[in-house]
Amino acid sequence: MNRQELVSIIRERKSFLCVGLDTDIRKLPAHLQSSPSAVVDFNKAIVDATAPYCVAYKPNLAFYECLGSKGWQALEQTIAYIRQNHPNHFIIADAKRGDIGNTSAMYARSFFEDLDVDALTVAPYMGEDSVTPFLGYERKWVILLALTSNKGSHDFQLTEDAQGQRLFEKVIRKSQEWAGDDKMMYVVGATQGKMFEDIRRVAPTSFLLVPGIGAQGGSLEEVCKYGMTKDCGLLVNSSRAIIYASNGTDFAEAAAREAQKVQEQMAALLANI
Amino acid sequence: MNRQELVSIIRERKSFLCVGLDTDIRKLPAHLQSSPSAVVDFNKAIVDATAPYCVAYKPNLAFYECLGSKGWQALEQTIAYIRQNHPNHFIIADAKRGDIGNTSAMYARSFFEDLDVDALTVAPYMGEDSVTPFLGYERKWVILLALTSNKGSHDFQLTEDAQGQRLFEKVIRKSQEWAGDDKMMYVVGATQGKMFEDIRRVAPTSFLLVPGIGAQGGSLEEVCKYGMTKDCGLLVNSSRAIIYASNGTDFAEAAAREAQKVQEQMAALLANI
Repeated sequence: MNRQELVSIIRERKSFLCVGLDTDIRKLPAHLQSSPSAVVDFNKAIVDATAPYCVAYKPNLAFYECLGSKGWQALEQTIAYIRQNHPNHFIIADAKRGDIGNTSAMYARSFFEDLDVDALTVAPYMGEDSVTPFLGYERKWVILLALTSNKGSHDFQLTEDAQGQRLFEKVIRKSQEWAGDDKMMYVVGATQGKMFEDIRRVAPTSFLLVPGIGAQGGSLEEVCKYGMTKDCGLLVNSSRAIIYASNGTDFAEAAAREAQKVQEQMAALLANI
Repeated sequence: MNRQELVSIIRERKSFLCVGLDTDIRKLPAHLQSSPSAVVDFNKAIVDATAPYCVAYKPNLAFYECLGSKGWQALEQTIAYIRQNHPNHFIIADAKRGDIGNTSAMYARSFFEDLDVDALTVAPYMGEDSVTPFLGYERKWVILLALTSNKGSHDFQLTEDAQGQRLFEKVIRKSQEWAGDDKMMYVVGATQGKMFEDIRRVAPTSFLLVPGIGAQGGSLEEVCKYGMTKDCGLLVNSSRAIIYASNGTDFAEAAAREAQKVQEQMAALLANI
């Protein structure tokens, strides 16, 4: 999906919600637990129920890898299901990969050719040649970690260099030499409130993937106040608050209700741009 | 495997070689290509042939993930084979993972409980709570990226803070507050020669995993001159130069010959400590 298409679905659906498919097999509703395809069944139901209210889905690889090869199959099946039944949704593999050039190229093949997701989260620590192998694909995106939502983000991401530039700012500045705002987004944690003002100084037009709304404690209004652009420029993720809204047989309806609530807030916020 | 056992096998085998199982299905010998278990067959033969000359094996996850769920199975089978047939070898999953706490905990389960490797490479960008979930396992190790061997290592890892401390030094210093040299190692690229002197100033006793010997151009003598400790303190990795030494039916014998050459150099270098 290219930038123009992404902006279009945001405007049409009046939503910039990304639903995180962090499907933990231990938290699934009891009535699904016994099925060998529990994870996929759960994901399909969640996706069908929430699709009208969101523009993106983001499976986090950790939750699939922990099931071994069966988990990888569940991931493949989930992505194929979204592709086929909801082709106007953006799919993000939250894998936080990044390695030396020939190895990143292997990861790029896995995620962009085989799994065929739209975007992959990438860790910046290894620099340019660990990121550029992901940039050679039409209509595919890199979402680079910049300022994350966890406590440990303070350990290195906020370190100032001799010129007073913080590491996350350097990551954003430098990486814009590798690709423009039509191929690269940034992960920016929502718990950082006013930090979005600083981010917009270095990345005025880039899309930002914002985790940390809901369970991690960020405020949607604050994110939009400082982070929204005329093209929206935001994908805001919610995982646990939506997919585990109920653990009964009504889990999908409950997820839809939660997603709709967020979508209605988003519609009001989008009306300002 | 704990530190004492690792040091013991290094002394007994007179080797600190790690063989990188970066098994690229496109580069396998022609006579194996047609088998559905080509990757596992190749790995088993390489492992059996090189086991006398090395102390560790390091599959890089990218090369398995690119085969989807079958690749994950091949990884599981390879690791199980090493565990069963060569129990005195250290197994490193080179996965460069790292995510928010509950997600890193999922990765830790996958790698330390299910796959049962000895060590996992972890990216430091997200800080303490992205690393500590991997530290709660007895006899398991985190190998944190510090100074990598690729060109892009210059982009961020060498950035100096206001006190003149480079990012990779800060990563090493800070992370020693999270675990000691019996649970944490560091990835330090071999192309950086004298940098090992600087590394030993901040991590005098830690084991270092050194990629970049062979195809990536580092020198074993230089690494040992500046990086070796009285406990050796090094695991030096070679992948392509060993596993692709021949692409004929003699690939395993050729790999053994290359591994033995390196082991003999290592034996001479170990004689100095």
